[in-house]
Amino acid sequence: MMASLLDSVVSYLPSVSASDHASVVALNLFVALLCACIVLGHLLEENRWMNESITALLIGLATGVVILLISNGKSSHLLVFSEDLFFIYLLPPIIFNAGFQVKKKQFFRNFVTIMLFGAIGTVISCTVITLGVTQFFKKLDIGTFDLGDYLAIGAIFAATDSVCTLQVLNQDETPLLYSLVFGEGVVNDATSVVVFNAIQSFDLTHLNHEAAFQFLGNFFYLFVLSTLLGVATGLISAYVIKKLYFGRHSTDREVALMMLMAYLSYMLAELFDLSGILTVFFCGIVMSHYTWHNVTESSRITTKHTFATLSFLAETFIFLYVGMDALDIDKWRSVSDSPGTSVAVSSILIGLLMLGRAAFVFPLSFLSNLAKKNQSEKIDFKMQVVIWWSGLMRGAVSMALAYNKFTRAGKTDLRGNAIMITSTITVCLFSTMVFGMLTKPLIRFLLPHQKATTSFLSDGHTPKSIQIPLIDQDSFIEFTGNNHNVPRPNSIRGFLTRPTRTVHYYWRQFDDSFMRPVFGGRGFVPFVPGSPTERDPPTDPSSV
Amino acid sequence: MMASLLDSVVSYLPSVSASDHASVVALNLFVALLCACIVLGHLLEENRWMNESITALLIGLATGVVILLISNGKSSHLLVFSEDLFFIYLLPPIIFNAGFQVKKKQFFRNFVTIMLFGAIGTVISCTVITLGVTQFFKKLDIGTFDLGDYLAIGAIFAATDSVCTLQVLNQDETPLLYSLVFGEGVVNDATSVVVFNAIQSFDLTHLNHEAAFQFLGNFFYLFVLSTLLGVATGLISAYVIKKLYFGRHSTDREVALMMLMAYLSYMLAELFDLSGILTVFFCGIVMSHYTWHNVTESSRITTKHTFATLSFLAETFIFLYVGMDALDIDKWRSVSDSPGTSVAVSSILIGLLMLGRAAFVFPLSFLSNLAKKNQSEKIDFKMQVVIWWSGLMRGAVSMALAYNKFTRAGKTDLRGNAIMITSTITVCLFSTMVFGMLTKPLIRFLLPHQKATTSFLSDGHTPKSIQIPLIDQDSFIEFTGNNHNVPRPNSIRGFLTRPTRTVHYYWRQFDDSFMRPVFGGRGFVPFVPGSPTERDPPTDPSSV
Repeated sequence: MMASLLDSVVSYLPSVSASDHASVVALNLFVALLCACIVLGHLLEENRWMNESITALLIGLATGVVILLISNGKSSHLLVFSEDLFFIYLLPPIIFNAGFQVKKKQFFRNFVTIMLFGAIGTVISCTVITLGVTQFFKKLDIGTFDLGDYLAIGAIFAATDSVCTLQVLNQDETPLLYSLVFGEGVVNDATSVVVFNAIQSFDLTHLNHEAAFQFLGNFFYLFVLSTLLGVATGLISAYVIKKLYFGRHSTDREVALMMLMAYLSYMLAELFDLSGILTVFFCGIVMSHYTWHNVTESSRITTKHTFATLSFLAETFIFLYVGMDALDIDKWRSVSDSPGTSVAVSSILIGLLMLGRAAFVFPLSFLSNLAKKNQSEKIDFKMQVVIWWSGLMRGAVSMALAYNKFTRAGKTDLRGNAIMITSTITVCLFSTMVFGMLTKPLIRFLLPHQKATTSFLSDGHTPKSIQIPLIDQDSFIEFTGNNHNVPRPNSIRGFLTRPTRTVHYYWRQFDDSFMRPVFGGRGFVPFVPGSPTERDPPTDPSSV
Repeated sequence: MMASLLDSVVSYLPSVSASDHASVVALNLFVALLCACIVLGHLLEENRWMNESITALLIGLATGVVILLISNGKSSHLLVFSEDLFFIYLLPPIIFNAGFQVKKKQFFRNFVTIMLFGAIGTVISCTVITLGVTQFFKKLDIGTFDLGDYLAIGAIFAATDSVCTLQVLNQDETPLLYSLVFGEGVVNDATSVVVFNAIQSFDLTHLNHEAAFQFLGNFFYLFVLSTLLGVATGLISAYVIKKLYFGRHSTDREVALMMLMAYLSYMLAELFDLSGILTVFFCGIVMSHYTWHNVTESSRITTKHTFATLSFLAETFIFLYVGMDALDIDKWRSVSDSPGTSVAVSSILIGLLMLGRAAFVFPLSFLSNLAKKNQSEKIDFKMQVVIWWSGLMRGAVSMALAYNKFTRAGKTDLRGNAIMITSTITVCLFSTMVFGMLTKPLIRFLLPHQKATTSFLSDGHTPKSIQIPLIDQDSFIEFTGNNHNVPRPNSIRGFLTRPTRTVHYYWRQFDDSFMRPVFGGRGFVPFVPGSPTERDPPTDPSSV
């Protein structure tokens, strides 16, 4: 191999690359473990308690134990966790794929509720957790934290982990729940940025109306700019691919360009201090609405599955890593003299987590219900419980933030920081395993299949409110398609009772008369032969 | 965005991550440049002089100039070139894809010639270059080099760059040429490893028969083990996917597993000090013969295009980087006082490169022709010239090796090392641009289309020699398929005159009666519905 040629060349020099060999071993083991996760996840698919993320987490934990035993308690690491790896390489494909495959109609129908949960909800949750830890931590003897630290803890644990949500909720089985909880996770990313900027620039002891308005203004500024950036990148990709007509020569160029443009949208948002998650999510939505229809049939199949596969791999990678990292012995050593404190802190955090989430899910659902006339589209109490429960998991995002906050600049040795790290790990493991395992059974118990279908159908009735800016014809066709086990008559009824003079109507007018002729999209692109599978009509990437 | 949340969290601490911002800027620019390469490469596709790699190289050079001007001559870098990035992440997808899409029949028919070129040829070339530099460098005043250094230079410039070959030669237009030159590139990787180990373990001043036999033994040991590892990994993937029948639940798992297993084969080879390039190449061949037929139609389309896209992106990335890195001002500063020496060294190297390649292409082609009775399958002189010419390019592999050899352990400041680095850059740029640009016209001049078709067809006649161990029915069908513009009667004649009692025949017997029933493959896997494109008969991934 070339690298061993390299080693050979290098061995003339004094520095023999021994660490290289270790990293090759680690990479081998990690790839093999990923394979094991896929195979085991497949075998355990029918199991009602398990899901892919818990399988990966358990395999990671088991590997950590084995490494710990082999190395005589010295190490449980294979790869060094880096936030860059997570935020720059693993997170973007997951969120982009979620946008690419999301049911657009469902998402935009619940837009106002999602915004309520994602913006106001995160602020409420963050406040509750911050106040809680401020009270409790003073009583426990765990080093000195200032207000900034407490707020950071609030922000770390207030954010719903979109990655966990994707793993536990199923878009086809519980579409309303999925769009609400996952949408909240996407929106709350923007909120987190604004909250943090607010914390830095405002005098927190003198909150007044002006500050609140400025806060709201910042939020909308960030939200709108991030969304626009994502939409613009998606539209550019659609326009370029439509104009240059890549399919004529090569499917690979189209696929490569879509991947690169999607990634570029995320990185541009990072560059301009916007919300990369929001940007790449909307870029995914626009790409599935326009760009995806401008490419050849082969490219359609390829992009649909490639994005899903990359997202799946990134998710598995994250959970495997979190499981393996949890046993890192160095972190536990400094808290081993006071295991009680660590358990107490973890319990307090989990309690506050549940309280903070309850403090916004139930009131905001009540508010959201007030605005709706039709009984069937209200969020009933059982649904509220499920929404509350399924957003309780904390995962890699929290871990990455906690590492960043509590292990920098030589402060690692401080006892309070060590406790915060181990507590975060405990909270993440506990919430992912316990809350995660119980979510599927809970949904089956509270929202049995008929019920789920009903609540799904109930959405078909009245998209009459203002919150449907981007709904489109094909997502409706997809919605009524027979691949979702939706009884056809009901959907037609939904279609008949649907008022036409809504935002949706105007959007479709605009889409058909201006957007699609320019940017392409379903039915506005010439038929592109070039693959043996071209005979079938194009389907949406979100249809399985 | 989360990362700006991170920044915000971090900004409480003294260490503000300013370098992070710089790397985000760099990543943005790099991704944007990759997009530009794809679009420009597409627009310049019809140009007879350009190819994608030269476009990327020129864009890289231009960007380097711009960055140099903006930073006032301080830097031309965007990303730091690392051999790890190249050998661990960029090279495997390129070689795997080459194996996955290679025309198996063509490759195995010319197996003996490929082995001759790849093994004996590389040794000859390395010897010529080493002897040459030993003679010339002593006359120039460029620091002290020992025998190890000279041998390293020989090895760096003896190896044909598989990546460059893939860019310049077209498998469909000149299949024989492609299989010879690219196959040579794959095999010579194994040779390089053996040569280097030989250099280290043998006393070079006392070469005798024993050492030669040991050398041959080592080569075959390495070649066989690497091949077996690749074949075994491929077969395991085929068996697992066939047994567990992933397609039933998810295309994404199949695709992910194929990607991971392919990568695992490369990394395992690295781990065991084998030739990763050989391993992953044969893994690709086995996967396209068995595994690929066991997955759903969606997975087939997805893997075919995903592997091609990843390979395409990696190639573009490499050339873009090489172009950008060429202007790194630090390297040129230390040789700026003696530009003549650098030019002299580069010229000598290019001359030796051409001489060394000529020293084995023509004699070995003569030998290869001696063994063949049929006039039509001999390598004629024009073809020999093209083989000689199209293997002259040196690219990222040479650069990576030169960096590793001449910039380590504080020796960077030595004048001789600086000259070697700048000369390597010059040789790479010159050979890629000049030799690369002239290859297409040369092929058109020496082997006009009719000629190319004839030499292509001439292969259809006599697979009677021993060198066809893995040829298969479907690659024959693919070979005679109408997607290659081959006149049908000729192909049928080729089929009729084909002797049946050959290795090929026995291989097919074995394949049909044992291998395919166990590992799956064309016609031995139950029909898997699951995608709307399922109606078409499966085609081989190597058919465009």
